[in-house]
Amino acid sequence: MTNTPYLRNLIIETPSKPGNFAKVAYAIGQLEGDIGDIQTIKVGTLTTIRDVSVQCNDVEQLDKIVEAINAIGDEIQVQAISDDVLRAHEGGKIHMKGKVEIRSLGDLRRVYTPGVANVCKVIEKDPQQAQFFTGISNTVAIVTDGTAILGLGNIGPVAGMPVMEGKAVLFDQFAGISGIPILLDTSDPDQVVETIKHIHQGFGGILLEDIGSPHCFEIEERLKAELDIPVMHDDQHGTAVVALASTLSACRQAGVKLADSVVGQIGLGAAGLAISRMMMAYGVKKMQGIDMNEQALERLLQYGGTTAESLEEIMATSDIVIATTGVQGLIKPEMVRPGQIILALSNPHAEIQPEVALEAGAAFAADGRLVNNVLGFPGIFRGALNAKTKKITYDMLIAAALAILDSTKHGDLVPHPLDPNVHQNVADAVEKVANLNSL
Amino acid sequence: MTNTPYLRNLIIETPSKPGNFAKVAYAIGQLEGDIGDIQTIKVGTLTTIRDVSVQCNDVEQLDKIVEAINAIGDEIQVQAISDDVLRAHEGGKIHMKGKVEIRSLGDLRRVYTPGVANVCKVIEKDPQQAQFFTGISNTVAIVTDGTAILGLGNIGPVAGMPVMEGKAVLFDQFAGISGIPILLDTSDPDQVVETIKHIHQGFGGILLEDIGSPHCFEIEERLKAELDIPVMHDDQHGTAVVALASTLSACRQAGVKLADSVVGQIGLGAAGLAISRMMMAYGVKKMQGIDMNEQALERLLQYGGTTAESLEEIMATSDIVIATTGVQGLIKPEMVRPGQIILALSNPHAEIQPEVALEAGAAFAADGRLVNNVLGFPGIFRGALNAKTKKITYDMLIAAALAILDSTKHGDLVPHPLDPNVHQNVADAVEKVANLNSL
Repeated sequence: MTNTPYLRNLIIETPSKPGNFAKVAYAIGQLEGDIGDIQTIKVGTLTTIRDVSVQCNDVEQLDKIVEAINAIGDEIQVQAISDDVLRAHEGGKIHMKGKVEIRSLGDLRRVYTPGVANVCKVIEKDPQQAQFFTGISNTVAIVTDGTAILGLGNIGPVAGMPVMEGKAVLFDQFAGISGIPILLDTSDPDQVVETIKHIHQGFGGILLEDIGSPHCFEIEERLKAELDIPVMHDDQHGTAVVALASTLSACRQAGVKLADSVVGQIGLGAAGLAISRMMMAYGVKKMQGIDMNEQALERLLQYGGTTAESLEEIMATSDIVIATTGVQGLIKPEMVRPGQIILALSNPHAEIQPEVALEAGAAFAADGRLVNNVLGFPGIFRGALNAKTKKITYDMLIAAALAILDSTKHGDLVPHPLDPNVHQNVADAVEKVANLNSL
Repeated sequence: MTNTPYLRNLIIETPSKPGNFAKVAYAIGQLEGDIGDIQTIKVGTLTTIRDVSVQCNDVEQLDKIVEAINAIGDEIQVQAISDDVLRAHEGGKIHMKGKVEIRSLGDLRRVYTPGVANVCKVIEKDPQQAQFFTGISNTVAIVTDGTAILGLGNIGPVAGMPVMEGKAVLFDQFAGISGIPILLDTSDPDQVVETIKHIHQGFGGILLEDIGSPHCFEIEERLKAELDIPVMHDDQHGTAVVALASTLSACRQAGVKLADSVVGQIGLGAAGLAISRMMMAYGVKKMQGIDMNEQALERLLQYGGTTAESLEEIMATSDIVIATTGVQGLIKPEMVRPGQIILALSNPHAEIQPEVALEAGAAFAADGRLVNNVLGFPGIFRGALNAKTKKITYDMLIAAALAILDSTKHGDLVPHPLDPNVHQNVADAVEKVANLNSL
């Protein structure tokens, strides 16, 4: 038996004096840790921070090494332990870069004072010119209160920041959009709406992200009503766009017509309710849903859906089932109706495994691993910003879903998220509809 | 006589159909405009935007060309007219860039879901880890309400955006800081403080910028008191740091000791009051000021300064005079006292021209062209962020001023702003003092 080596990076802070790092290296060597690359992260006036790659046999050995380093004293400290995934996030994943480099006093006078005053005056005279001489119309705020970060729940906005930075990376890479994380310390709808209103002039759009239910509904509705820039809660409508595209793709494979099917939505949280609304906007005539929360059911009724009495009933009466409950294994094989299409979207553990559903007679089954929001939001905002639209409407979102469907290779459920054509196609489709709307 | 050519760039939007640009080119040619470089800024689904360089003889010819293009019809429109300075600002000067490139599904899974969940959990468990695995501690909000943009006054935050973007460019280039413009639609201190408090968790520091007087005082004081990250109003303290450095530099050249001198501050707005406070913090024992506004005088008294009865009196009794009134030619040559040091800092037109002051007997005279905030704020925040300090204190600001002085070549008033050593020296000095404070 060979041991898989246990490789970690220790972020170690030492006073900036010669000899201190030798003590660290000695402590690691004494416990038979193998030192790899060493990178200086920061040389401060008082302390230096290094990233030291250490190979051990197991986590116990690493723990002992960390303990030994912290026991050296002299303010030598292991500040963090990083691994292959964490390393991709060290120092944050985004940075506000200047697009111009200032190389001379002439550059400084053009870019900054006194030249910049001319640009300010042009915009003061005609505010529309801000479209051309600032980045506002290409900038989207990525706003969270940290109450529903991924499947982790209410972990707070700072712990959710890695997700927001990730969104900004995707905005940059897939849509050329400048994405700005905004971390809110409040979830109170009045305070959230006031805060975003007070800062909205710096942005061309607002992406609401990982905001919990039910306060997400009020926050989104009010911001949409009060702001004249596009606002979208990704966990609702971004997810719903990709879910609609996936459902249409599944229907195409199973030879089923979505609009004529009975669709059952299991779980009516932010995503589930939005998927139901999207299905109805697409033309699904019989949309039924179920949830343990009475208010969630009322919201569905309010938007024109119907409710089912039980999980068994919805499974027995739906041609297409979409589940977003977060409950692993909720759907039992015996509930599956022959010929049914089942999208069990909860991550990382689906309500029913696709292979189990297929074995139980489903015509098509998939889980949520492929149904990734990244297929939607970059192109949706690119299109909305290009069209300078004030609202993201259902026909724009449906156009986005159809563009995702069109970009899907036959046999696949959805396109590869790194295929740049998807994002371009989504952007074009959204822009086209937005332009038609504005005529 | 040869005409200087009049060169401008027309930002022209045409429907995205072949043949439309030919009409534009024809219109320009008919009026004898000379077409240079043509750059496609945006190809949309409906319209295309091009930047067309046009050389004319004068502005009248250009106006006629613009009129002719707009008269073509078919929704062909000149959207903006750009010149050499404006061109540096086209599309905005900053962009939020991803520091990682996503090239594979493996990258996507590390940077975004599901890998990012591990990073979130690490921070949830120990919020201090956000220092290492997010960019928060390297990010500074650049906050304005647009009420005092440069010398232009209350032109609003959107018209002020080019200045904020410029600050972000300087933060990036001189200090490696990610600067995020935040445009406020309110100047009410309660609303400003609430708004910034609600979003402060995403930032390692707050730079208040071009916020008018007197509301800037209350806003800064309250944010400093309520937030545990560094807050600095650049127009007050950034300016005061550079003014102190310049004054010390002038004293060095004139062989005068600042602390023992009588200093007269003419104009007690945001900058003038802050300069007075900085002088007293440095050790100036006799600090006198004058302003037409009664409240401004009261503020100076409150901080320990004295007031003078008249401009003539302050000129007659001060060894060193600093003027920040915005009033061109306010100081008459006959008011200058032989041997006086005079810094007339109003831009673009000084209270007295340096050569006039010298002729009238001043030992040293300078205007505000060189006294540029860019020497201060990047290094001040770099040092504060490095030290993870919660406050920017007077001893840190004085250390910054001394570092600027130390970086000044003999014979110069201040260092060259593009000398990277200045910013590094300021950062080191501030970090050192902050570290000592925290011991």
